[in-house]
Amino acid sequence: MRSYTKVDKLKIAHTNKYNIFGCIVREGPINRAAIAKRTDLSLPTVMAITGELLEKSAVCSIGKGDFGAGKPPEMFEVNPDFFYVMGVDLGRTEIRIIINDATFRQRLCYKEPTGYPFPEEAFICRLGHIIKDLIGSLNSGQARILGAGIAMPGLIERETGRVIISPDFGWKDIPLQSRLQELLPFPALVRNSNHALALNESALENGSDDNHVSFCVNLGYGIGAALIIGEELYAGAKGTGGELGHSVVEKGGPFCKCGNSGCLEAVASGEAIARQAAVIAAHHGDSRIAELCGRDISKLEARMVFEAAEAGDEGARKIISNAADYIGIGLSTAVNILDPDRVILCGGLMRNGPFFFEKIRAGMEEHVMPCSGRKLKLTVGKGGEYGTAQGVCRAFLNSFWSEQLLPI
Amino acid sequence: MRSYTKVDKLKIAHTNKYNIFGCIVREGPINRAAIAKRTDLSLPTVMAITGELLEKSAVCSIGKGDFGAGKPPEMFEVNPDFFYVMGVDLGRTEIRIIINDATFRQRLCYKEPTGYPFPEEAFICRLGHIIKDLIGSLNSGQARILGAGIAMPGLIERETGRVIISPDFGWKDIPLQSRLQELLPFPALVRNSNHALALNESALENGSDDNHVSFCVNLGYGIGAALIIGEELYAGAKGTGGELGHSVVEKGGPFCKCGNSGCLEAVASGEAIARQAAVIAAHHGDSRIAELCGRDISKLEARMVFEAAEAGDEGARKIISNAADYIGIGLSTAVNILDPDRVILCGGLMRNGPFFFEKIRAGMEEHVMPCSGRKLKLTVGKGGEYGTAQGVCRAFLNSFWSEQLLPI
Repeated sequence: MRSYTKVDKLKIAHTNKYNIFGCIVREGPINRAAIAKRTDLSLPTVMAITGELLEKSAVCSIGKGDFGAGKPPEMFEVNPDFFYVMGVDLGRTEIRIIINDATFRQRLCYKEPTGYPFPEEAFICRLGHIIKDLIGSLNSGQARILGAGIAMPGLIERETGRVIISPDFGWKDIPLQSRLQELLPFPALVRNSNHALALNESALENGSDDNHVSFCVNLGYGIGAALIIGEELYAGAKGTGGELGHSVVEKGGPFCKCGNSGCLEAVASGEAIARQAAVIAAHHGDSRIAELCGRDISKLEARMVFEAAEAGDEGARKIISNAADYIGIGLSTAVNILDPDRVILCGGLMRNGPFFFEKIRAGMEEHVMPCSGRKLKLTVGKGGEYGTAQGVCRAFLNSFWSEQLLPI
Repeated sequence: MRSYTKVDKLKIAHTNKYNIFGCIVREGPINRAAIAKRTDLSLPTVMAITGELLEKSAVCSIGKGDFGAGKPPEMFEVNPDFFYVMGVDLGRTEIRIIINDATFRQRLCYKEPTGYPFPEEAFICRLGHIIKDLIGSLNSGQARILGAGIAMPGLIERETGRVIISPDFGWKDIPLQSRLQELLPFPALVRNSNHALALNESALENGSDDNHVSFCVNLGYGIGAALIIGEELYAGAKGTGGELGHSVVEKGGPFCKCGNSGCLEAVASGEAIARQAAVIAAHHGDSRIAELCGRDISKLEARMVFEAAEAGDEGARKIISNAADYIGIGLSTAVNILDPDRVILCGGLMRNGPFFFEKIRAGMEEHVMPCSGRKLKLTVGKGGEYGTAQGVCRAFLNSFWSEQLLPI
């Protein structure tokens, strides 16, 4: 059904305060007249509410702005220490954590190896301890932490933050969000890693321009993706969309850890690249790949295969080139179905120089429907190794904002 | 950027009239109190505006409703003859046209073979004549036709209704919408057939429940699809999304008319099924397939292959089964990426009994990521052969409504 506009007058005062605070958080430094214009509220309302926000130390005045002619207006921005937010990225190889202040500046970052995430309960307890120790190391203590976003690979039920299945972690049906809620002194929100990463990339890319459809692909140990329409994540009916890694690109192809066969992830992920290179390392002890992993194939990682390819190893080049081809096919399918205007490639595999990127581009251009991708921009992500943690911070804040829960 | 609510007071009166008229069109028969509740407007405003709409014959009173206790209220619905809308479905084999009245009841339907759509200009002129003749055959004349939606396969630029490329028609860069605007005495809107079909299926399926994500697949001469989120079509950045038929399901597979190879459409569309069966018909003159096409392979159609399979022809069964497998793979990819809660299969190929449907279901279930499709409903479309024409009628009306152009 089409909906008709409805205004609940009792909520207006509360909403006004939120709109003004939100405007200062997102657009500060900003003056009262600009706030009034952006929020469509009267100047007296803006003056009263900014006064209240100043009193509560939610915002601060940073002096007079200089706009040339006329009396310089007072500029406001959010008080950076008014709240902090934590972002936790549970990757298959590393756990990466950041704490951002209210201006979204990173105040702390931390990482350690993930290790073997079993049994789940022990892993969750360990995570609880890591988070509490980090908060303890912050001068301001935990009082100001609004909460934490936690990103992990796999299907996450949006409503509950339950891990439906995570092939990377070998987890199935784990109530991660509610377990963390019990362990932590603040709210926790669990999201899919690829969705979090995409939120961050899209925000970094967009600036003030929100009319884009971005498809963000995470090429790492596994392969995942997410679609961002404007500023909104499109996650599907149950929130489990974006599983590009489990598209079948080779009917009857190699077995995948998800249980199917021929998935993109089974032929082109970091894990698949390392697995294929292990055959070379095991049978050609004098190869560059064997040398790089110290002749211990259990230590073989995708980055070594890229290094060997760079050094001219033919086998390594073939493996990389084949993976790029398949990624190109997977991307072309996504482009044909979704018609994004930007495809952003992120993740560990993209830290290996332009050869891989150009191979992927060629594969995609070969397979995309003629004309359909003609305005498509293919780029490499900008978020760096803490991009997913930043993204899940954003996801947490978005959820917090939408519920108007900030203590103002 | 997040937007803040803004109300332009000058538009309120106009918007109120639209909301009330729209409410009567979509939800009638309805009484004044119910209109007031649905539109969040006061009863006096509703009374004044319904009075004006009655006077203009935009709506009519259909007497008193019976709600049990209390005085029975007067019920309103749109005047069926207040406006008509035309829907034109340009299919590769047939042109199908409908005219709906204001209550969306079908008042006329018409079809004729498409023939060979070349040269484009001659085809467009012919189409103009067909449309004008049909309008002439309506008693009420063309005065009340608001306009026409025209659906055709291929990439259509949303802003302009230009055909970027249509492999089915062999067209490239044809300004179809502006040419029809010149030929017709009312506005025309060109849309992609699969998008139109999906709008109709989603509307038939939803009823009053709009919280669904539906992926609607058109399996006919070609293969296309569209995603409907709630009631809105998601068509991508340039409006060319949904090209599932050009996903590569077989790396290095058969050549496709789009210019690529291994596309789903090249191995599983009606055209591909007929093309594969032609090999049997040409080399096995005593086969059921050869018999069904009168030993003239240029007359071979997919429905004959289905008929031969039904009659036990092993070759035909293999072709159908192989096509269903590939469609299952294509669907699983779409489900993994999009996480819809409904997949609706439509088009000519679905008129061939449960064997094909069950094969597709099995193929999809085999290849979809475990758990990701666990609540997914797979159904066959309900729209019938005029479904695309109905859908493009809806698309035209949606566009018309959004611009508040109705003459009230």
